[in-house]
Amino acid sequence: MTLSPRQRMFVEVGRKEFVRNGYGSSSIRTIAQEAGVSLSALYYHYKNKQDLLLAILMDGVDTYDSLWEQALRAVGDDPVEQLRAFVRANVEFRTQFPEHGRMIATEIRNLEPEGARLYDERRRTGRQRIRTIIDDGVAAGVFTTKYPDDCRKSILAMTAAIANWYDPNGPDTPAELGERYAEMALNLLCPSEIPGSSAGKKG
Amino acid sequence: MTLSPRQRMFVEVGRKEFVRNGYGSSSIRTIAQEAGVSLSALYYHYKNKQDLLLAILMDGVDTYDSLWEQALRAVGDDPVEQLRAFVRANVEFRTQFPEHGRMIATEIRNLEPEGARLYDERRRTGRQRIRTIIDDGVAAGVFTTKYPDDCRKSILAMTAAIANWYDPNGPDTPAELGERYAEMALNLLCPSEIPGSSAGKKG
Repeated sequence: MTLSPRQRMFVEVGRKEFVRNGYGSSSIRTIAQEAGVSLSALYYHYKNKQDLLLAILMDGVDTYDSLWEQALRAVGDDPVEQLRAFVRANVEFRTQFPEHGRMIATEIRNLEPEGARLYDERRRTGRQRIRTIIDDGVAAGVFTTKYPDDCRKSILAMTAAIANWYDPNGPDTPAELGERYAEMALNLLCPSEIPGSSAGKKG
Repeated sequence: MTLSPRQRMFVEVGRKEFVRNGYGSSSIRTIAQEAGVSLSALYYHYKNKQDLLLAILMDGVDTYDSLWEQALRAVGDDPVEQLRAFVRANVEFRTQFPEHGRMIATEIRNLEPEGARLYDERRRTGRQRIRTIIDDGVAAGVFTTKYPDDCRKSILAMTAAIANWYDPNGPDTPAELGERYAEMALNLLCPSEIPGSSAGKKG
């Protein structure tokens, strides 16, 4: 969903405010002030704090989806390459947009039921995509794990956790981390072989 | 740290309240009411909401530590068995005490600096323990991963995420999940061999 420049501003200012204070302690009035507009100007676009929260979370999904869609377009149909590309995109999302991840971790529970439903629906595409990649790999015999669904959840969790410790000024570039976590995700899936890899596997 | 029965009550009631409403929106007055005591009775034990938050988080660490300490006492020095035991204990913590995990995920950021320092210090034992298990396994050549530290973080993250979807009424018992995640954690570490395992590894 494309945001207008003004909506984009509210979403960015609101995200900073929610990440800083939490949804419960944040005020829509403060967000309007920090955006330098009147409260009614904000209400024209987002009818309340809940509406703005949903827009911020949806914007996070859009950012995430465009990263992995772009990454998958750059590789072929091979499940190993697709898996690597998807993991690299997840690492990119967590290292480049840590505030999106923080919003997801702490504020989803503040969505009211209808918003939670819409948000869940929007996330479905990405969830389904990695499921398909793994299932294709299992069907082709290149992933031999007995637990494809737990592996899927684990890959999402281990890349999500990067945001908890990643330091943009630290030694790891996002690209290096992306390669490393792609390799680890493959190991988790028990690959029948890892072409060109130096993962330390025997035989 | 041992809590008195009364402190235990405040910690349990406070945890429920913080998990339900978030720290920012929770009131110490409501917690006292729900515990059926006067505000001053609560203040006698915890001087403010911040102090209670710290006690709740510390209690979570105590619960966690006693689970993995007990699990490790039941196995020998073999890094593979220690790793399995540690992962099983993590799964037990996430399935049996989901509210502890939710507090950690959402409320640590509300600790003031001194509390955050104390909490971090208390968590050090568990963090160091899994680090040592992995390092011992790498030194012994039974784990061949090139990324022991990322594997450590990933194992903690993938077990932590279980709390997001685990359903006590669902098909998986905590014990089954524990075995499964122990096997997955081993796969992540690129074991030189998995004795008695049917992980689907070739060779």
